[in-house]
Amino acid sequence: MAEQCIPVPGGNVTTPKGFRAGATYAGLKTYADDKLDLCILVSETPCVIAGVFTRNSIVSPSVELDKERVARRRAQAVIVNSGCANACVGPQGMIDAREMAALGAGKLGIGEEDVLVASTGIIGVELPMAMIRSAVDRIELTPDGGGLFARAIMTTDSRPKQGAVTLEVGGTPCTIGAAVKGVGMIHPNMATLLCFVATDAAVEPGFLQAALKSAADLSFNMVTVDGDSSTNDTVLAMANGMAGNAPIQAESPEAEAFTEALSELCVSLAKEVARDGEGATKLLEVTVEGATSVEDARLAARTVASSPLVKTAIHGADPNWGRVMMALGRSGAKIEEQKLALYLNEICVFDEGGPVPFYQEAARVSMKEPEVRIRANLRMGRYRATAWGCDLTEEYVRFNSEYST
Amino acid sequence: MAEQCIPVPGGNVTTPKGFRAGATYAGLKTYADDKLDLCILVSETPCVIAGVFTRNSIVSPSVELDKERVARRRAQAVIVNSGCANACVGPQGMIDAREMAALGAGKLGIGEEDVLVASTGIIGVELPMAMIRSAVDRIELTPDGGGLFARAIMTTDSRPKQGAVTLEVGGTPCTIGAAVKGVGMIHPNMATLLCFVATDAAVEPGFLQAALKSAADLSFNMVTVDGDSSTNDTVLAMANGMAGNAPIQAESPEAEAFTEALSELCVSLAKEVARDGEGATKLLEVTVEGATSVEDARLAARTVASSPLVKTAIHGADPNWGRVMMALGRSGAKIEEQKLALYLNEICVFDEGGPVPFYQEAARVSMKEPEVRIRANLRMGRYRATAWGCDLTEEYVRFNSEYST
Repeated sequence: MAEQCIPVPGGNVTTPKGFRAGATYAGLKTYADDKLDLCILVSETPCVIAGVFTRNSIVSPSVELDKERVARRRAQAVIVNSGCANACVGPQGMIDAREMAALGAGKLGIGEEDVLVASTGIIGVELPMAMIRSAVDRIELTPDGGGLFARAIMTTDSRPKQGAVTLEVGGTPCTIGAAVKGVGMIHPNMATLLCFVATDAAVEPGFLQAALKSAADLSFNMVTVDGDSSTNDTVLAMANGMAGNAPIQAESPEAEAFTEALSELCVSLAKEVARDGEGATKLLEVTVEGATSVEDARLAARTVASSPLVKTAIHGADPNWGRVMMALGRSGAKIEEQKLALYLNEICVFDEGGPVPFYQEAARVSMKEPEVRIRANLRMGRYRATAWGCDLTEEYVRFNSEYST
Repeated sequence: MAEQCIPVPGGNVTTPKGFRAGATYAGLKTYADDKLDLCILVSETPCVIAGVFTRNSIVSPSVELDKERVARRRAQAVIVNSGCANACVGPQGMIDAREMAALGAGKLGIGEEDVLVASTGIIGVELPMAMIRSAVDRIELTPDGGGLFARAIMTTDSRPKQGAVTLEVGGTPCTIGAAVKGVGMIHPNMATLLCFVATDAAVEPGFLQAALKSAADLSFNMVTVDGDSSTNDTVLAMANGMAGNAPIQAESPEAEAFTEALSELCVSLAKEVARDGEGATKLLEVTVEGATSVEDARLAARTVASSPLVKTAIHGADPNWGRVMMALGRSGAKIEEQKLALYLNEICVFDEGGPVPFYQEAARVSMKEPEVRIRANLRMGRYRATAWGCDLTEEYVRFNSEYST
C-alpha cells in the first residue's frame, strides 16, 4: 500500500468530487437478473482524459470513436451500454456510436465531442437505437449513482466491481474512484473488460495517460480468464481537478504516489475480475521473479496463469507442479531448469535442478483455499511480475457451450 | 492426395520393409486398461535419421540425448516408454536416458549410439529403471509388431494412431509407415506428442530432415488440443533404404512426391490426434486463406482453433461467428475487418464489412456433425494454412481436475 493511499469504505466511481452517475434499463440485456443496461458518468466540469484500449485488430466503432476523442485529452462524460458490443456490424456501427454520444450530450447539455462511448455485449448485431433513444431520458444522474453505474456496465459478472482510494497531493486530499466489468465470456463476445476511473485530482494530460498505462499494465493487462481478448476492451480515466491541487505532472513530487494509488486501485479491481471469472471457484496468483526483463517476467506469469492444465490442476487442488514447469518452459521467457525454484503456496516443490520432496497431502489441503499462489524464482535477473487468473471449471464449459445466439 | 501416394489398408510403422517392433508391460503405465508401456522399433540395417523436437525450453533428457544422436544422421532403433516423461528429475534423467538406450542396444546387439529414446508420461518422477531393466528382454520383435508399438506409446489416447502409404520412387515402390500418440493432457504432463516414421525408401539425410520438418509444420505443428506444449514432443523419421531406390535428394524428381506423401500421412495422423483430443466430441478444421504470409495464415488458423470460446461454441453447435472474429482479431495476423469473408461449414456469415443474414437453425444442424469447418478468407494476400483442433468439453475439465498425483 502506498504511504498516502487509503481505501474509501464503500467507495465507487462517484466518490471523487464533482461526479454524478445514473442508469436505466433500455432493453438490451436479456440474460441477467439485474436489468440495468444503459448508464452515464458525468463530471460537473470538463475533465482531462486518458485511455487504454484493446489491441485486438478488430475493434468496435465505439472504441474507434473514443480513441479519436481521447486524443483531444478532454471530455466530460461517458455513456455506456451493456448487452450489445456494437462490433462487426459495418458502417452502421460508427453511426450508432456517434448517436449514442450525441444522445448523452443532448441530455447533459454539453458538446458531443466531450462525450465518450463504451459498449459491451454480443458481437455482430446492431445497437437497438430506438430503445436507447427512448431510454436516455430516464437516466437520473446523482452524486451517489456510482453503484448503479457499476451494475449497469455488467454483462456476465456475478457482482459489481468498484472501489475508491484517497491520497494527499501537496497537502490536498484527492480521491480516485473506479468501476470495472468483465469476467470472461459466459455469454459470447462479452469478455470485454471496461474500466472507468474518475478522480477529482488535477492531473496534467500526458502524465495521466502515462499513469493510466502503467496502472493498466500492472493490473488489467495481467489478468487472464480464458486467454481470449475482446474487440471492445477500454480503460478510461477522467480527472476533473475539483480537489484543487496543483496539477500533477511527471516531475511532481506526488507523481509516484498518484501512480501507485491508481495502480493499487486497478490491481484490487483486476483481482476481483479474476476472482469472478466465469465458473471460477478460486483466485490464482502467479508471481515470477528473477527474470532477465520485465517483459519476460510478465510473459512467464501470464502463461502459467492462463494454462488450461495449470487451471484445471488448481481446480482439483492438485499440487501438480510439472504442469507449471511445462507452462514456464513454453512461455518463451528465458529460463534455465537448473536455476529455477518453484513454490506452490510457498511450499518449495522444485529447486537446484530437481524436485523437492514435499508433503503432498499438506499441499493439497492448502490448495483448497479460495486463493492459490504460485511463485517461480528464475534466478536469471532482477525483474518480477504478478499475474492473476482463476481455475478452469466444468461450469465455464457448460455456460459457454449452452448459450444460444 | 499426391499422384503416386496410396494409403495401405491396415498399414503401420512396420509396414515398410526391414522394420520390426514389439512391446511389453514394465509397470509404468498405471492408469490405462491397455498396459503396454515399453516398446522398441528396429530396422534390419542402420537408417538415415531425422528429428523434430519440442520448442519448450524445459526438455526431457531423453529429448536432449536424441538431439545429439540425430545430429549424426544415423541410428537403427528407438526404445520408448510411456507412463513417465523422465523430465525435471535432475542429473538422474540423462543417466537413465542413456541406460534406456544401452538396454535397447544390448538386446539388439547394436551400438548404443544407434539407439534413440523417447519417454512420455508424468513429469518430475524418475524412471523406474529396475522395472525397465527386467522388462526389456520380454519384448518380442516381429515384422508385424507395429500395432503393439502404437499401443505401447499411448498415454491418455483412447485408440492407437497409425498408418502407412506407398509411392513409387523412380519406378521402385517405397512405403512410409508411422505411429503417433498424444491427445492433450487428461493425466498431467502427458500431452506429449510422439511420432515415429519408418520408411524403406533411400533418402539423403539433409533432405529427410527438410521433408520431415515440412511435414511436421503442416501437420503436428498445426494441431492444438489445449494450447499447452510438452517437455517431450518428438517426431523421428528412420529411412533404411531397403526398397532399393536411388537415394532421394532435394533435387530428385521424386523429392516433391516423397514430401507430399510424408505430409499426407502426417496430416491424417494429426487429424486423428485432434479428433481424439481429451474429452473431444468433434474435430474442428480451421482454414485461413488470403493471408499476407504463410506465418500469418498459420498464426490466425491456430489462434481460432485454440480459442476456448470458439471451442465451447463448437461443442454447443452454436454458429457464434463473433467469437471467430474476436480470435482472428487477436491473433496478431494482418487483418482488415472490411475485407474478410468468414464461413461456418461453408455458410457465409460475414462479408464486405458486415454480417450476412444466414439461416441460424440450418447452421446449427450442420454444426452437430462430428467435423466442423471454419474458413476465413482475409483477402490480403495469397497464403493459406489449415489447423486442426477439437471442441472443449466438461469432460476435459473433469479429467484434468480429478487426476491426483
